[in-house]
Amino acid sequence: MVQLQALSQRNFLNTADLTLQEIQQLIELALKLKQGQSQASLAGKTLATLFFNPSVRTRVSFATAMFKLGGQALDISSEGAWAFEYRDNIVMNGATIEHVKEVAPVLSRYCDGIAIRCSELVTKSAESAKVGAWETAKQDIVLKSFAKYATVPVINMESNVYHPCQGLGDAVTIKEKLGQTQGKKYVLSWAYHPKALPMATPNSQMLAACDLGMDVVVAHPEGWELDPEILAVAQRRAEQSGGRFSISHDQDEALEGAQIVCAKSWGALKYYGQWEKEKELRVQHQDWIIDESKLQLTDQAHVMHCLPVRRNVEISEGVLDGPQSIVIDEAENRMWAQMALLATLL
Amino acid sequence: MVQLQALSQRNFLNTADLTLQEIQQLIELALKLKQGQSQASLAGKTLATLFFNPSVRTRVSFATAMFKLGGQALDISSEGAWAFEYRDNIVMNGATIEHVKEVAPVLSRYCDGIAIRCSELVTKSAESAKVGAWETAKQDIVLKSFAKYATVPVINMESNVYHPCQGLGDAVTIKEKLGQTQGKKYVLSWAYHPKALPMATPNSQMLAACDLGMDVVVAHPEGWELDPEILAVAQRRAEQSGGRFSISHDQDEALEGAQIVCAKSWGALKYYGQWEKEKELRVQHQDWIIDESKLQLTDQAHVMHCLPVRRNVEISEGVLDGPQSIVIDEAENRMWAQMALLATLL
Amino acid sequence: MVQLQALSQRNFLNTADLTLQEIQQLIELALKLKQGQSQASLAGKTLATLFFNPSVRTRVSFATAMFKLGGQALDISSEGAWAFEYRDNIVMNGATIEHVKEVAPVLSRYCDGIAIRCSELVTKSAESAKVGAWETAKQDIVLKSFAKYATVPVINMESNVYHPCQGLGDAVTIKEKLGQTQGKKYVLSWAYHPKALPMATPNSQMLAACDLGMDVVVAHPEGWELDPEILAVAQRRAEQSGGRFSISHDQDEALEGAQIVCAKSWGALKYYGQWEKEKELRVQHQDWIIDESKLQLTDQAHVMHCLPVRRNVEISEGVLDGPQSIVIDEAENRMWAQMALLATLL
Repeated sequence: MVQLQALSQRNFLNTADLTLQEIQQLIELALKLKQGQSQASLAGKTLATLFFNPSVRTRVSFATAMFKLGGQALDISSEGAWAFEYRDNIVMNGATIEHVKEVAPVLSRYCDGIAIRCSELVTKSAESAKVGAWETAKQDIVLKSFAKYATVPVINMESNVYHPCQGLGDAVTIKEKLGQTQGKKYVLSWAYHPKALPMATPNSQMLAACDLGMDVVVAHPEGWELDPEILAVAQRRAEQSGGRFSISHDQDEALEGAQIVCAKSWGALKYYGQWEKEKELRVQHQDWIIDESKLQLTDQAHVMHCLPVRRNVEISEGVLDGPQSIVIDEAENRMWAQMALLATLL
Repeated sequence: MVQLQALSQRNFLNTADLTLQEIQQLIELALKLKQGQSQASLAGKTLATLFFNPSVRTRVSFATAMFKLGGQALDISSEGAWAFEYRDNIVMNGATIEHVKEVAPVLSRYCDGIAIRCSELVTKSAESAKVGAWETAKQDIVLKSFAKYATVPVINMESNVYHPCQGLGDAVTIKEKLGQTQGKKYVLSWAYHPKALPMATPNSQMLAACDLGMDVVVAHPEGWELDPEILAVAQRRAEQSGGRFSISHDQDEALEGAQIVCAKSWGALKYYGQWEKEKELRVQHQDWIIDESKLQLTDQAHVMHCLPVRRNVEISEGVLDGPQSIVIDEAENRMWAQMALLATLL
Repeated sequence: MVQLQALSQRNFLNTADLTLQEIQQLIELALKLKQGQSQASLAGKTLATLFFNPSVRTRVSFATAMFKLGGQALDISSEGAWAFEYRDNIVMNGATIEHVKEVAPVLSRYCDGIAIRCSELVTKSAESAKVGAWETAKQDIVLKSFAKYATVPVINMESNVYHPCQGLGDAVTIKEKLGQTQGKKYVLSWAYHPKALPMATPNSQMLAACDLGMDVVVAHPEGWELDPEILAVAQRRAEQSGGRFSISHDQDEALEGAQIVCAKSWGALKYYGQWEKEKELRVQHQDWIIDESKLQLTDQAHVMHCLPVRRNVEISEGVLDGPQSIVIDEAENRMWAQMALLATLL
């Protein structure tokens, strides 16, 4: 862990804030922790977790990660209405009862880290139902404000833009399954889902795969393009790692020869704020499912999904229950990846 | 604990799934733990607790049981809407967002045990308000599905049919108070209550008493018969343990010579799904209360109740606050019984 | 800690229940714990926390205090509807499902302490909207009933009348900042706030300052007098500690020469139950804010606030973000004060 000292006391908001080497070292530490070959201790330390959106996997995996390290995760999500204020120079005589300028430093005095989930698309449909709302959502005001005013590391448990713990956990899983990743084909394949889902997870899954030197293909129907700025970062990271990055609108072509297929649904950024319109178009793509016939096109690919998964909608039951599915291992590795992260940051 | 090794990594869904000898050994271990004569450790281990119905006693007793053993209970009850899917071969394009086939194995990777409370009569009145609904409820789909797909022990914290932790805790209490239990008289006495209550607790209380070789009498008004299949199991267990089992509709007669009286209310299975009708009949039995005069009929009986108890409705204030009440000890012993169970299973 | 043995297993409902010497010893222990000069252990012990009103700071500071001592705080606030019964000799055939006579002793068997927040003004507006309601609220039925029936220490995390943990934490902070406190000037200054707030915090802040031998001035507009019985206790404690106690309706005059200024809003006791009327009068006092010009009147005073604070309403942004504000230290010291308390009581 000598090399990881540079990460100590830093925030973890996006995998792309770390160097490729730091990502590699975290992956190695996670796998060592999983194999029982590394000891780390956070005895007596507390990670405060704040979920503005609920989550089973993320909450349990952070709680067990902290506990296995001798610390505790303290979930404070149900406390009050979270009517926090984030604006400067505001006369607080309205609905907000506490400013992040107080909450973040106070939690920093009690706790050794603060982990936050705040994803607008899921929760605040009214706010996301505006044209141009993405530009606002993209600022990740809640996460960034906590990061600004906290004096302990802040960990992103999924914001509007990134879900770096999922990205890191996926990278651990790919490394575990493939060993050498250089040049191997990874396909992030858009999947149909009855609801428009946030883009944070596919953004971070794509970025993490680009860090591994893989031949990364993001496949989706036309109109479901991810944010161009983030695509540019993916392209740059792929180049740095000696990998490749491309986009495809032909799922079959993309899947050919793939060694990893990660299915994931997301809403169309193009129609952010016009979700009725988006839905009309989305339902035309119900054939974007990973099933047995699609899997035939790949090179015996391992099938990934961040969960929860809609059975027989995103992925067929046969594939999910078959030998190529690694979704349970992928979920488990969230815990080992987060243990490595917590042991390093805190 | 050598003899209990056969229970390691097994589920605990119903006391009657265990042999009489295993039950005896768990009782002895619980009493040793209470007396500080046994050490057991679950250091670093996590028990996930899922309450589909809330509970103070069960949650706190599991949390302290795990903590005293060096582990933690992680309550994930408030996470999301629990819109889990339990059906096979379903196209998940509706309200359910996650299948038990994923949730159970993923929790199994993070945690060392899963404890579940899911009691339909309490929560889903719409579903229980159908004639024939008992046959469906009796399948305990939620508990059984978790038990099927989890790869760590699943503990029943009360299902539609059984509440084995209450049964085991009661058995520990009876043993603690009476010492030798063979042939002593135990009366499970139905009590009036303004609401129809689930049958899981009386089922498990009755079964546990039958395991102790006691003269077990279940007393209730006509019409409040418990499920005949479970009565048959009680009969069989009583025979195996060298005890006796009978049913009485005459409370006074039943109480004569009793050394343990356990008061408990439950709804009439006969009118499951016809709760209005049940209520009309139930209010005619408000004299089914354990009060000072009833207690005179017994052989200085200890008075038990699983709590919460309706004062002056199920049991009189004088009895509850008097020297024969052991309801607080009984609640405490839930913790010691569960410690024995957790130390054995996990 | 030899001298603090008299506090072992006692309740902590009000700072004024302790001797001046006991308060001093708790302050010293808190500062030693903060400096790492004292070790205390509550290994394996559990503090149950019950919040009838939510709180971030109190919950997190108790959870981290227990964890740093090797124990756990177990929050059971979200369990059920808390329809507890507190009345004697009641036939419980209505809405309440459990009597405090059972809940308190049962929790005492599972846990080593019970901490309760129950503040009526905040939650039960219907009940507090009656003339004469203060006399009922002042009885603190919930807290007092738990204290009566529990067999382990009960800690007041804010009742209708007192918030002694805030008082103790503030005393630790004053001692930490001033060193010698004798004769120094402390001003508790009423502040405007859009809502009528409870009086428990200012009551306990005032009492704690009086224990330190300070020249204590409570400044507020006419009509916002605190309860006369509690004022009498403040007067008596000030005399015992060799300090002084007075009330002022002139904020500027009060602030002159102050070394500590604690801003706090509260509702007018005089109009308890007539909150519309109270609000009409309260809005006339929006100039009761601690800003830069007010601070000029003091002797370089440290500025305190219990948080959450309404920025630019109770205290100006410039003061809060300036070098004289010690509100974050004050919040932190809640944790150390409570650690001292828990280590002593449990």
